[in-house]
Amino acid sequence: MARRPGDGDEADSGTVVTPSAEFPPLAPEELGTLRRIGDRWRADHPGELPIDPTLGRHGGRPTPTRFGRLAPIAMFRREQPDELVATEPANLPGTGFGRALTRLRRAVFGPPLSSAAVLYERMRKLVALPVLSSDLLSSVAYGPEAMLAVLVLAGSAALGLSLPLAAGLVLLMVAVGVSYRQTIPAYPHGAGSYIVAGDNLGAGAGLTAAAGLMLDYVLTVAVSVAAGVHAITSAVPRLAPFAVLLGVLVIAVLLAGNLRGVRTAGNIFVLPTYVFVVALLALLVVGYLRAAGRSFEPVPPPAVPAAEGLGLLLVLRAFASGAVSMTGIEAVSNAVPAFRPPEWRNARTTLGWMVAMLVLLFAALTLLIHLAGLVPRPDQTVLSQLARVTFPTGPWYGLIQAATALILLLAANTAFNDFPRLLFFMARAGHAPRRFLHMGDRLAFSDGLVALAATAALIFVAFGGYTERLIPLYAVGVFLAFTLSQAGMVIHWRRRRGAGWRRRLALNAVGATLSGLVLVTAAVAKFTEGAWVVVIAVPLLVLLFHRVHRHYRNLHAALALHPPPVAPVAAGPAEGEELPQQVRHLVVVPMARLNRASLRALAYAVSLGQPTLAVHIAPEEAEADRFREQWRAWGDHVRLETIVSPYRAVIGPLAHYLEALHDTGPELVLTVIVPEVVLRRSWHRPLHSRTEQRLRRALRPLPGVVVTSIPVHLTE
Amino acid sequence: MARRPGDGDEADSGTVVTPSAEFPPLAPEELGTLRRIGDRWRADHPGELPIDPTLGRHGGRPTPTRFGRLAPIAMFRREQPDELVATEPANLPGTGFGRALTRLRRAVFGPPLSSAAVLYERMRKLVALPVLSSDLLSSVAYGPEAMLAVLVLAGSAALGLSLPLAAGLVLLMVAVGVSYRQTIPAYPHGAGSYIVAGDNLGAGAGLTAAAGLMLDYVLTVAVSVAAGVHAITSAVPRLAPFAVLLGVLVIAVLLAGNLRGVRTAGNIFVLPTYVFVVALLALLVVGYLRAAGRSFEPVPPPAVPAAEGLGLLLVLRAFASGAVSMTGIEAVSNAVPAFRPPEWRNARTTLGWMVAMLVLLFAALTLLIHLAGLVPRPDQTVLSQLARVTFPTGPWYGLIQAATALILLLAANTAFNDFPRLLFFMARAGHAPRRFLHMGDRLAFSDGLVALAATAALIFVAFGGYTERLIPLYAVGVFLAFTLSQAGMVIHWRRRRGAGWRRRLALNAVGATLSGLVLVTAAVAKFTEGAWVVVIAVPLLVLLFHRVHRHYRNLHAALALHPPPVAPVAAGPAEGEELPQQVRHLVVVPMARLNRASLRALAYAVSLGQPTLAVHIAPEEAEADRFREQWRAWGDHVRLETIVSPYRAVIGPLAHYLEALHDTGPELVLTVIVPEVVLRRSWHRPLHSRTEQRLRRALRPLPGVVVTSIPVHLTE
Repeated sequence: MARRPGDGDEADSGTVVTPSAEFPPLAPEELGTLRRIGDRWRADHPGELPIDPTLGRHGGRPTPTRFGRLAPIAMFRREQPDELVATEPANLPGTGFGRALTRLRRAVFGPPLSSAAVLYERMRKLVALPVLSSDLLSSVAYGPEAMLAVLVLAGSAALGLSLPLAAGLVLLMVAVGVSYRQTIPAYPHGAGSYIVAGDNLGAGAGLTAAAGLMLDYVLTVAVSVAAGVHAITSAVPRLAPFAVLLGVLVIAVLLAGNLRGVRTAGNIFVLPTYVFVVALLALLVVGYLRAAGRSFEPVPPPAVPAAEGLGLLLVLRAFASGAVSMTGIEAVSNAVPAFRPPEWRNARTTLGWMVAMLVLLFAALTLLIHLAGLVPRPDQTVLSQLARVTFPTGPWYGLIQAATALILLLAANTAFNDFPRLLFFMARAGHAPRRFLHMGDRLAFSDGLVALAATAALIFVAFGGYTERLIPLYAVGVFLAFTLSQAGMVIHWRRRRGAGWRRRLALNAVGATLSGLVLVTAAVAKFTEGAWVVVIAVPLLVLLFHRVHRHYRNLHAALALHPPPVAPVAAGPAEGEELPQQVRHLVVVPMARLNRASLRALAYAVSLGQPTLAVHIAPEEAEADRFREQWRAWGDHVRLETIVSPYRAVIGPLAHYLEALHDTGPELVLTVIVPEVVLRRSWHRPLHSRTEQRLRRALRPLPGVVVTSIPVHLTE
Repeated sequence: MARRPGDGDEADSGTVVTPSAEFPPLAPEELGTLRRIGDRWRADHPGELPIDPTLGRHGGRPTPTRFGRLAPIAMFRREQPDELVATEPANLPGTGFGRALTRLRRAVFGPPLSSAAVLYERMRKLVALPVLSSDLLSSVAYGPEAMLAVLVLAGSAALGLSLPLAAGLVLLMVAVGVSYRQTIPAYPHGAGSYIVAGDNLGAGAGLTAAAGLMLDYVLTVAVSVAAGVHAITSAVPRLAPFAVLLGVLVIAVLLAGNLRGVRTAGNIFVLPTYVFVVALLALLVVGYLRAAGRSFEPVPPPAVPAAEGLGLLLVLRAFASGAVSMTGIEAVSNAVPAFRPPEWRNARTTLGWMVAMLVLLFAALTLLIHLAGLVPRPDQTVLSQLARVTFPTGPWYGLIQAATALILLLAANTAFNDFPRLLFFMARAGHAPRRFLHMGDRLAFSDGLVALAATAALIFVAFGGYTERLIPLYAVGVFLAFTLSQAGMVIHWRRRRGAGWRRRLALNAVGATLSGLVLVTAAVAKFTEGAWVVVIAVPLLVLLFHRVHRHYRNLHAALALHPPPVAPVAAGPAEGEELPQQVRHLVVVPMARLNRASLRALAYAVSLGQPTLAVHIAPEEAEADRFREQWRAWGDHVRLETIVSPYRAVIGPLAHYLEALHDTGPELVLTVIVPEVVLRRSWHRPLHSRTEQRLRRALRPLPGVVVTSIPVHLTE
């Protein structure tokens, strides 16, 4: 189930990420059960601790040295009577190799950041605008071109269709924009499609939206990087052969930067976004002045022969391709809580500005391209051609290309912020692996970042780094999320029936319908061009999310606290017990031979003060006799059972014997105590039979069998 | 150190392999120490066992069903008061997949064999002869050809040199044969080069001989299979393109047969060996009759242009190549205990016959090949050519080729007997991994067999399956072992100085000198042709054996029993204790959250009746407070220590905290009790953080820290 925003405290729902999400609080009824368990808990020996668990620290604060290893005691400082705080060196692994690796990682990604450093930073509108709009606005760098690239297949005569299609797209942009404007005040804690769809249409719809969004983020990275690299190779054709390598490198740099946990600091976004907008506006102004010089007479495009007939399908494909200009429009609604108060109002205003700018840039660019008579070429982007035509000399051309490449990289970067956050919310609801709840030592969701970068790089390479080939995959995921989110809003209004709910419902219904049309168009018209990947991937992902959720639900049910049975304090079946007075022990020590390791295990076992049984597995009768003789020489202090294993296997008979013991006394907990020789060198491993590990694996499925390893350390 | 034969009881030395070699008996002083440890052993609670460890079996013998799974209790039967015997189903793994795999393996390799089925079979001379001579006699199938193949490089005129070279080789055979005849009575428990050289020349020489022998066995397989396949492709040229594949298949079949544990049943050797000898004798008789018809005038060989000058090096290379005809001569001396009493006398007689037959076949064949004017050809072996010339019609040719191929496969099979035995002796002395002491469930040394087959197949494929290319590698290893063994005998006689020791010493000295000369000749003359591999491999192997031995020696020293300190019964440092009354406990339970799994771990911990401490690692202050609140709700029955880990790591701070605890109380044994969720499906694994495993790995290097896993089984 997706959590309903507004349930519980604010920090635990909506779009706020917390480092302690891995440790959810107990529900009230669980707390009650816990109290009842505690009431019935009896321990024989209260047990004074033989040492001071506070490590003798009472407020003293040793200054930890950054380099060089501290004594373990010095790694902790005390801040409250029953609480220690681990200093940074306490995170280093114990082995030399592990420490070296961690040091290297820290040199690259920076020292660890304390949980207290989580930023709940609020953005002004003028900062929020560039931060949240880089993804959306950068889309105009490839959106119009994607549309033209389809139209030109029907020959240069069909290029004129770009104007009516652009008009349709502008309508779509406005409709979706208005639709999202309404979502913001309704979900002031964050209105991601996953949450809105899940909340109103059910968990399945939420997961479908999530699957669409995940693909969207992956493709945002792949497409933005591809378009950014294309902007670079258009300006510097010598780099063209290295485009794929360049793109992978860019993804790696983005990953590294995000693993460093560079905060969503608005600053790095502000300048490039405004530069891009200003550069584009300059391009448009100069371009239209030049066009005015020609009395707005379109330059006839170079003659391109038609490869396909101009059918409805082609037009629909062109429309769906152009629709990728809208990707990123949902960014503001995800990020409502990041605005300064009143959050929803500021967010809504910002969204208005963004959509207005998008419409302006998109429409003006498409028209100017038409007037300049430009045709997509494989070696140069249309935007690059336009810039060259408009600024034949001077530094302007270079500036425009650089700004384009930069804003595209920033757009890719926003996916690195959003993807792990989406996984975080899904993991919190139990739909994704719980590891995505864990913040790495730089306060970044490292696992999510790596997953995104790896998938995006894979797709980027698989499609040869061509923007054009990636576009068909892109549109489906995006519009799937749009459609579900807005359909969810329709249900929302119908349920709430607040003031003016009919108008709001109608607006969202228009948005949902138009988005749904684009979704179907993209899925059908571009099915063979790559959309099939998405059409297959989304249901598979949803199935996976469901399976993951079922596993966690079962796990949670299995581990949920049950009140202890009231009547008999007597022993129940093993693994049913939850009270110490119900546990009855039998300690079993497998003895292969009599040496220091096995005698230490035996001494440990006996020192627990519980009934103890030693077991020896002998390959033949003669050896069994010899061992019993040694046992008697030692004094026969512990009951010994010998098992002759005529087929010389050790693990199998031992495991079956323990199972048989358990069958005769199902209420007993069998503690199997095995010495484990700790090897210092990995090449020594094949020299040992590793019985401990094999036995542990064989015993793992048995109920009520506990395995204790007694480490024996070799000095060499 | 190589064990001296004659030390201890016979079953534990010499060439007898026992299934219980993995469990060596305690030395007398260790038994004494054991007694002293037992005298001081005190247990607080004697501990009546809560169940019957004999599983309630008092002489009853349920008949185990072969198929279908028995209840665990039924898998054991009782034969003595304190001894159970595991039936065959008790060896089956617990998981369904493991059981299916085991069943498949048994279908291929047969049901397991009981240790009682080890054969200490004694051979009559007439059975021993074919069993032990197949390796030696089969060498004449490629030895003369190997010599001619070198001579022909100097043109067909040089082929005449084969006669004086053969005379030299006959001398060598007699000298080495006489030399080995003397070894047999001196080492009646088996006189492998490893043992003889190690015994007289020191461990280093023994290991060098072992390295030589190991290469010898690997190459015996590779060369015999190559020559056998060549015998087949000579008769059926259509198979020639599949020679390498055929060879690998043959090795796989040999491996499978030996994994089935086909005993060295003389029967399968008797017939082919005698058939081969009879066929060769027939070939010789008819051949010489035909030659007599030409008044023993040699047929002039086809003119072959000289590729190299006829220098001393070439002659030496030819001699060294011809010397591979002697490989296998050491077989009898390895197998003395397998003869009927008086063992050494029967073995010596058999060796005499074998050498006589070798000399006869080798000399007569070489002369006849010369008389027939045959030259090595790539498409046909010389023996095949000779058979074709001698028997142009009739079934004789096919019979000879079939007998040759068969005896060569049997020769390869002898290496499958000897190689694992050599590894067994080396492992018993601690020079090879101990796993080679373990007999598989078919009473075969499975690991050794697989190692041999894999190495031989690798070399066979690497050399393209050409006998000729393998020969240079072969001679060096063989003659290294010969030389060391006989040099060892020289020292033996000098030390013993029994009756006639000067004569014996002289004979062995001659053998050693001649073998040594061949060794140096082979290593130098064939260095660039492949002998360099052996020249490098032998020292590396010896180094490896030494390292393995050092590891086991250190391990043995670390695990040897020490008498307990007499004076204070007080606590010593952790891992020093060997008596239960010296063990002082602190049980630590890491608690991530309060659920059934962690409460079960806590209940288990408290039920042990030892001082217990719970530890919670919190990612931030707020979470720590929340957890403490829950703890108080539960009743605060166990002392809780909270550690805030501001960098969100869990394993590192926990491990360091335990280390710090251990530092404050080094005499304590810290038992860390961790719940372990047992997953039913492997794809669930990425959904869990597997803290238990990671913690175990982190804690493994710490002294005095014991880890106990409490399994929690999920029903789904």
